[in-house]
Amino acid sequence: MSDAPLDAPLDAWLAAHADDRARHGLHRELRPRPATEHVIDLAGNDYLGLSRDPSVVAAAIAAVQTWGCGATGSRLVTGTTELHAALDRELAAFAGAGDALVFASGYAANLGVLTALADGGTLIVSDAGNHASLIDGCRLARGEVVVTAHRDVAAVERALAQRSQPRALVVTDAVFSVDGEAAPIAELYDACRRQRATLVVDEAHSFGVVGPEGRGLVANAGLAGAPDVIRTVTLSKALGAQGGAVLATPAVVAHLVDVARSFIFDTGLAPASAGAALQALRVLASRPALPAAARHNAGVLAAALDLPAPAATIVSVPIADPMLAVDTARRCAEAGVRVGCFRPPSVPDGRSRLRMAARADLTIDDVSRAADVVAAALGQRV
Amino acid sequence: MSDAPLDAPLDAWLAAHADDRARHGLHRELRPRPATEHVIDLAGNDYLGLSRDPSVVAAAIAAVQTWGCGATGSRLVTGTTELHAALDRELAAFAGAGDALVFASGYAANLGVLTALADGGTLIVSDAGNHASLIDGCRLARGEVVVTAHRDVAAVERALAQRSQPRALVVTDAVFSVDGEAAPIAELYDACRRQRATLVVDEAHSFGVVGPEGRGLVANAGLAGAPDVIRTVTLSKALGAQGGAVLATPAVVAHLVDVARSFIFDTGLAPASAGAALQALRVLASRPALPAAARHNAGVLAAALDLPAPAATIVSVPIADPMLAVDTARRCAEAGVRVGCFRPPSVPDGRSRLRMAARADLTIDDVSRAADVVAAALGQRV
Repeated sequence: MSDAPLDAPLDAWLAAHADDRARHGLHRELRPRPATEHVIDLAGNDYLGLSRDPSVVAAAIAAVQTWGCGATGSRLVTGTTELHAALDRELAAFAGAGDALVFASGYAANLGVLTALADGGTLIVSDAGNHASLIDGCRLARGEVVVTAHRDVAAVERALAQRSQPRALVVTDAVFSVDGEAAPIAELYDACRRQRATLVVDEAHSFGVVGPEGRGLVANAGLAGAPDVIRTVTLSKALGAQGGAVLATPAVVAHLVDVARSFIFDTGLAPASAGAALQALRVLASRPALPAAARHNAGVLAAALDLPAPAATIVSVPIADPMLAVDTARRCAEAGVRVGCFRPPSVPDGRSRLRMAARADLTIDDVSRAADVVAAALGQRV
Repeated sequence: MSDAPLDAPLDAWLAAHADDRARHGLHRELRPRPATEHVIDLAGNDYLGLSRDPSVVAAAIAAVQTWGCGATGSRLVTGTTELHAALDRELAAFAGAGDALVFASGYAANLGVLTALADGGTLIVSDAGNHASLIDGCRLARGEVVVTAHRDVAAVERALAQRSQPRALVVTDAVFSVDGEAAPIAELYDACRRQRATLVVDEAHSFGVVGPEGRGLVANAGLAGAPDVIRTVTLSKALGAQGGAVLATPAVVAHLVDVARSFIFDTGLAPASAGAALQALRVLASRPALPAAARHNAGVLAAALDLPAPAATIVSVPIADPMLAVDTARRCAEAGVRVGCFRPPSVPDGRSRLRMAARADLTIDDVSRAADVVAAALGQRV
């Protein structure tokens, strides 16, 4: 082969796109973080601080020692250990679901549910603010997709009522990932029942954080055991590990095991992550004050910034201009507070924001100091 | 809510599909495996036996102790630790690529490459035998997709030559996941150069197994540094952990960081898996006899079963009828040998098979005994 780069269309195409992103303030760089930092972190999703909980760390280590570092295959082949089965079982029990099925990621769980449960005779009604993994699931699924305005239950019911398809799925985040607002779960469920549709709820940012003892928004609406509500959760946020799961009836789970491509064709979750998630779940079940502490910290942070009370732990500040958003986040970092900075394509054009999550393990001094720093950084931009 | 299941379309639809699968021998059940087993495992993809290598286990444990159990966010937010950066760097160096980018799974890496690099002006030419994650990537990507006959370079070149699009990607597994045959990488690359297309190669089943010191089939063809060849690898097979990565030029990697949805919107790889994969990579680099041992064992197994010499470690026996395939695998298991059993939708209709992978850490006695057991089980079905 030649050592010189080819004058191939790829190079020119990449360069043009890179220039365009740079011009619009949309270039990103990975910034590796060290193991020990002196920052107050509001950017991560370790909502309960369980990623470094000693009992969770010990469980991950025990899992590696017992099971090795990898699941070694798809969950249908060699990738289901007794540890994975226990995690499925305890997730279902905690969440009040008939059954549960652990995927290698929440992304994979969402792809799996939507592609396995929608066929050509299915209408999928998807909230305009849904997470990328739900959007990609809609794109991959057979069946027509209608995107409805954000949290617009009347629009959802209209789409369902006007459909020609025998079946329908209504798809929503429970707590939306960037702005942190809650979906109208009870109202969506009522619309689904009237229109004979199934409700699919992604509890990535609500499971472990809101609802009775952190059981999420569906449980909060009294719908945990409803056979026509399917939940997905992540194991990488409140549970501090990695992976995702579907909470549903045994019939839905059996269907996913047989046909969900992102389940069948993906290596099972690593034992360390399965062990960590299982122990984190046990900590959550035994310490109902943890979700309350996270919500309390988020409320204090929001109040200090004159923002509305958050639905969960996510507090979000709109800064339309992506370059200004980056600059504000940089000023926070220089003052020792790490905040998330979301720009297109993570958010729609013109809707960049700072995103903060107040973890349960922050002290009230941390929260106060963080609020001061963020307020000052925001003030400087006026 | 009512406790009784609703008479919703979902229930009837699930039941009809379950009946249909049962009738065709396509129902699957998860079979949790215990930590200690007395079986010869030919079903897993831990090709080099590194999932339980003491140094790899120690590295996973050290990673959990240093970094915690989860990456805590997207790699763009908090999910890139110095450990992830080291893994990116050492993967690129080992593979002779300009750069590397670790995703949370190989599935996510394939979705990311295809969706980020194909636009409306791109033709994607995809081998009919490609893995589900490549197929799903093609489905999700913008741009027209043409599926060409399995390993048919002339058909690929025809599709490229006849295209109306300025850009093209040619997509192939390096070693196909079920039957284990190798793609004609050098010929595909020549066709790509003549037709100004980029070659995308999934080295899931070749990285760590074939090529110079296990560097894979692209390296074997002398194309490791070619700027118009993009490779994906998994960290969950030869490296015994979890995750995936893209090996490409810095320009491609920068593009993925900015736009690949399955990178941006997925939690970073858990530290335990990153640490395990990094140490496994170091073991691989220091022990070039490991890939050779895996290939040798596969050759012995194939010869004993009167099958053609395998391209990598995968040995496959076609059994058209899925129920017969399950029955044969069950007989092997009863005799202490676990083999994979692939049925639709993992393989096309009428193409069920037993799939075996001979790991580097099997003794020659294990391989002989496994061959006897499989031969006997196959004989019984005549």
